[in-house]
Amino acid sequence: MAYSISSLNELIKQFEKLPGIGKKTAQRLAFHILAQPPERAENFAKALVDAREKIHFCSCCQALTDTDLCSVCSDAQRDGSVICVVESPKDVLAFEKTREYNGKYHVLHGALSPLDGIGPEQLKIKELLARLSDNTVKEVIMATNLTVEGEATSSYLSRMVKPLGLKVTRLAYGIPVGGDLEYADEKTLTRALEGRNEI
Amino acid sequence: MAYSISSLNELIKQFEKLPGIGKKTAQRLAFHILAQPPERAENFAKALVDAREKIHFCSCCQALTDTDLCSVCSDAQRDGSVICVVESPKDVLAFEKTREYNGKYHVLHGALSPLDGIGPEQLKIKELLARLSDNTVKEVIMATNLTVEGEATSSYLSRMVKPLGLKVTRLAYGIPVGGDLEYADEKTLTRALEGRNEI
Repeated sequence: MAYSISSLNELIKQFEKLPGIGKKTAQRLAFHILAQPPERAENFAKALVDAREKIHFCSCCQALTDTDLCSVCSDAQRDGSVICVVESPKDVLAFEKTREYNGKYHVLHGALSPLDGIGPEQLKIKELLARLSDNTVKEVIMATNLTVEGEATSSYLSRMVKPLGLKVTRLAYGIPVGGDLEYADEKTLTRALEGRNEI
Repeated sequence: MAYSISSLNELIKQFEKLPGIGKKTAQRLAFHILAQPPERAENFAKALVDAREKIHFCSCCQALTDTDLCSVCSDAQRDGSVICVVESPKDVLAFEKTREYNGKYHVLHGALSPLDGIGPEQLKIKELLARLSDNTVKEVIMATNLTVEGEATSSYLSRMVKPLGLKVTRLAYGIPVGGDLEYADEKTLTRALEGRNEI
């Protein structure tokens, strides 16, 4: 019989199911857990179950939260007249890290992609439109990804939002900060040229 | 107030503590868990706690096991006259994967490293010597790593084991299978030359 430990194999299997974790890494991580004090495994287990149980979508902006309203929606200091529309909850974290944005968010939970069966009904568009109806919102920033799907979603949404008399803006295309022109693709360079600003 | 979810932060922190997992990856993994059905998190949590609770050292060879004796030690089909001495439990898995070794193992749980405070007492050497005393063992294969510490451990152990009248062998140095001579270092090449075999 070959050497095998069922509970170790199960742990390796669980690690291996994580995105970007291969067989070797999964094994390394499992052995790491075994080499740590038992509290480490218990705390990790608790964090997994807790997060999965407690976290749900904010009833207003659909971002992730473990309270009814997320901390942005419930914060009276944040500017409720601007809504930044993003594809995924991760994008909210990315904007928050800039510490430059003081408006609110709306998470669509995806982007239009007819080939993958994702139409407007699969996204949190209904919820966005409901938020726009109470006249506090003045500007909607389309901050979907700058991909084909993100662009399609952005233009679909702006066709719906503009008739409401709101200002609709889109993230700027251009060269990333610290970017090297040599490695910029033609399309990005063209857009950066078109969007040039006077200095 | 910045956007923050305590149970998500805790989960990210737990992932981040894993070796080789940075902040970005930890965040990606945590979001992955949130996007999966709750059973995924529960099974993962159970596997963590189960493995940590059930797995301990085999009372004979000190490899990891969730039974009293590991599956190699308790297997009467395995050749008890050969013991392969390795540094870590992972090495047992590596040898088992070859499907070529039919003897038993002994896991030292480390290698001699005086600078790190690891002397013979910190390794499972006492347990190895106890296994050698019953005359069933004929050969001890030193399969510690081919590093300075592994070499030191191997030669220390062979000085203890040889006087017992046992055959002591060491893994062969050489060029890895598929290896390119151009990239082999001088020492490896010298050892490969010294250890050349007639064809």
